[in-house]
Amino acid sequence: MFISKKIQKCFILSILNSTRYINTKSNTGKFPRKIFSGIQPTGSMHLGNYFGAITQWIDLQHKNEDITVSVVDLHSITLPQDPNVLPKSILEMTATLLACGIDPNKSVIFQQSRVLQHTELFWYLGCICTMARLAHLPQYKEKSALLKDVLLGIFIYPVLQAADILVHKATHVPVGEDQIQQLQLCQELAQMFNKKFGTVFPIPRTLLSEKGSARIRSLREPSKKMSKSDPDSKSRICLTDASDDIVKKIKKAVTDFTSAVTYDPESRPGVSNLILIHSLISGKQPQVIVEESQYLDTLKYKHLVADVIIEHLLPIKKKIEAYIANPEYLDQVLREGSEKAQATAEETMVEVRRKVGINFLEKLKEESSFIVI
Amino acid sequence: MFISKKIQKCFILSILNSTRYINTKSNTGKFPRKIFSGIQPTGSMHLGNYFGAITQWIDLQHKNEDITVSVVDLHSITLPQDPNVLPKSILEMTATLLACGIDPNKSVIFQQSRVLQHTELFWYLGCICTMARLAHLPQYKEKSALLKDVLLGIFIYPVLQAADILVHKATHVPVGEDQIQQLQLCQELAQMFNKKFGTVFPIPRTLLSEKGSARIRSLREPSKKMSKSDPDSKSRICLTDASDDIVKKIKKAVTDFTSAVTYDPESRPGVSNLILIHSLISGKQPQVIVEESQYLDTLKYKHLVADVIIEHLLPIKKKIEAYIANPEYLDQVLREGSEKAQATAEETMVEVRRKVGINFLEKLKEESSFIVI
Repeated sequence: MFISKKIQKCFILSILNSTRYINTKSNTGKFPRKIFSGIQPTGSMHLGNYFGAITQWIDLQHKNEDITVSVVDLHSITLPQDPNVLPKSILEMTATLLACGIDPNKSVIFQQSRVLQHTELFWYLGCICTMARLAHLPQYKEKSALLKDVLLGIFIYPVLQAADILVHKATHVPVGEDQIQQLQLCQELAQMFNKKFGTVFPIPRTLLSEKGSARIRSLREPSKKMSKSDPDSKSRICLTDASDDIVKKIKKAVTDFTSAVTYDPESRPGVSNLILIHSLISGKQPQVIVEESQYLDTLKYKHLVADVIIEHLLPIKKKIEAYIANPEYLDQVLREGSEKAQATAEETMVEVRRKVGINFLEKLKEESSFIVI
Repeated sequence: MFISKKIQKCFILSILNSTRYINTKSNTGKFPRKIFSGIQPTGSMHLGNYFGAITQWIDLQHKNEDITVSVVDLHSITLPQDPNVLPKSILEMTATLLACGIDPNKSVIFQQSRVLQHTELFWYLGCICTMARLAHLPQYKEKSALLKDVLLGIFIYPVLQAADILVHKATHVPVGEDQIQQLQLCQELAQMFNKKFGTVFPIPRTLLSEKGSARIRSLREPSKKMSKSDPDSKSRICLTDASDDIVKKIKKAVTDFTSAVTYDPESRPGVSNLILIHSLISGKQPQVIVEESQYLDTLKYKHLVADVIIEHLLPIKKKIEAYIANPEYLDQVLREGSEKAQATAEETMVEVRRKVGINFLEKLKEESSFIVI
């Protein structure tokens, strides 16, 4: 391991405390800056994903950053998926990304399963990764504790995640707090590969957005974050929710018995969560919102927030529906994006295969040219 | 599991006792007969590999069977390989296969790492395979018991083996006794996939050669089989050994204190092993050899056997050397073979992706045509 326990701890703390880019021991200066991010096509996108990831990607796109966004369908099948639902989920996620503003002419957007170099690199990394390292990842411990028969995919997906990032030589990866451990594994695998075979990969750094610390909470249990996997659909607002449903969900959002609208995430997480959503949509600081809402009680404020959300999501929702109605176009976008992604991934793999010694002709030519000199 | 413990036991016993094709519960009748076999490019090929596998492949090729032979380099890297040695190993194994008679115009011979669909299918199978199933494989238990840090590759390679076979829709796989458990895993994964998503794969059967029970033993410890991994190189005769070395190795072969030449593998394994090699090369029954050698003592017989081996291997060795001197040709053979293998593997993966629901456009078209009808 190249990060000591102590450094690891500092690293995690600095990430948790910071709202800007985080640096770790890295060689990224040698590589052109490139940002990679993946999103699973399972379930509809909710406000947590939207503000936690997508709006950050859009911001980066506006800044003309080199961004690659992958619909990581191979990760979604680590848990059983209905083959009749998965196609619609891929379609909807692609439609949603475009509707939110990912522009295929500015960013690379592609479907992971179409770029075979991802699982190829997985194999090479799997041959240098130890079993113990994977077994210690907290997400594996959590997930496997709940299951009787643990599927292999649950154990090995962090290695595929590492391959996803490294095969594109990404230097920066926007990660949530729950993904930090996986990114550390990716950094370690990159470091190990480079040390063993010669440098191929940047050691990717985490990238936290300015909104990074703003985690949207569940509407039903504000102690938890808003999540796709929560069985209660009233816990989240999806971008495709009908306006009526949004009103209902916000009205039923768990708050407390104080009717004043105040921002205090610690002691009043429910109403503060609504203010946070409001703040992220409007761009106003929570304190400004609180001042503006001083004559409203919580119920009236909920109606206001619902209206703000509906107004913000309506154009996005309309775009999503329009894209979904045109699957051929979405297929074309993903096909073209996947071709671009494949080209960069193949360049990386040419290097990997040569370094590992798989490409024997090239290796032998190297040697004979060495002899000639 | 689709094979009960009892059936499993019968199955293994019938394999061990039989010298002909073994059938298990199978759907292979629906699929064209196709034989797949892989060989790792590590170390030189020895007489055990030669008579245990290669001569069988050549026999099958003579019978115009549909054979696909893979140099499975991705398996060889599950243990650390020197990147400067691996290219030569791949080169030598390919040269050896051609020198032994694998004909690229009759059989498909290819390099596993060039056909990315192998690791792709690995992923899909890894998402339906349980951790427990892999942990119980005896080869994993043996290998992991010896290592402090077990690499992931050691744990997951049987799933890649299954993908190797299934991605080509092989109906028959020549396996050694030590590979039976892995083939059973492959059968189970094929069965599970077919049941979950609809039939894509044949359930491959084992294929034992008529020479299948003739296992060549170590020259140093006849209780063990001849093996690449034995640290004592005097324990095996390699196809590329110099004639002098062959004489030395056979002279030093462990026999016993009886000087007569008799065939009794149980009580006289050493001399019987030499007779077995002699028999396999000459095509004469061991008893005929014993009769012909009745006036020879063991030492003189050893000289005779060494001569027989040298004479048999010399033309093969010359061919190996000629092929090795022409790496561009070997690269071309593997490239062309890999293109053929990729075409069949891609056909399979088109089905797999559609069945799993990854190919959303096709799935949606299926549905809409269903609605139109």
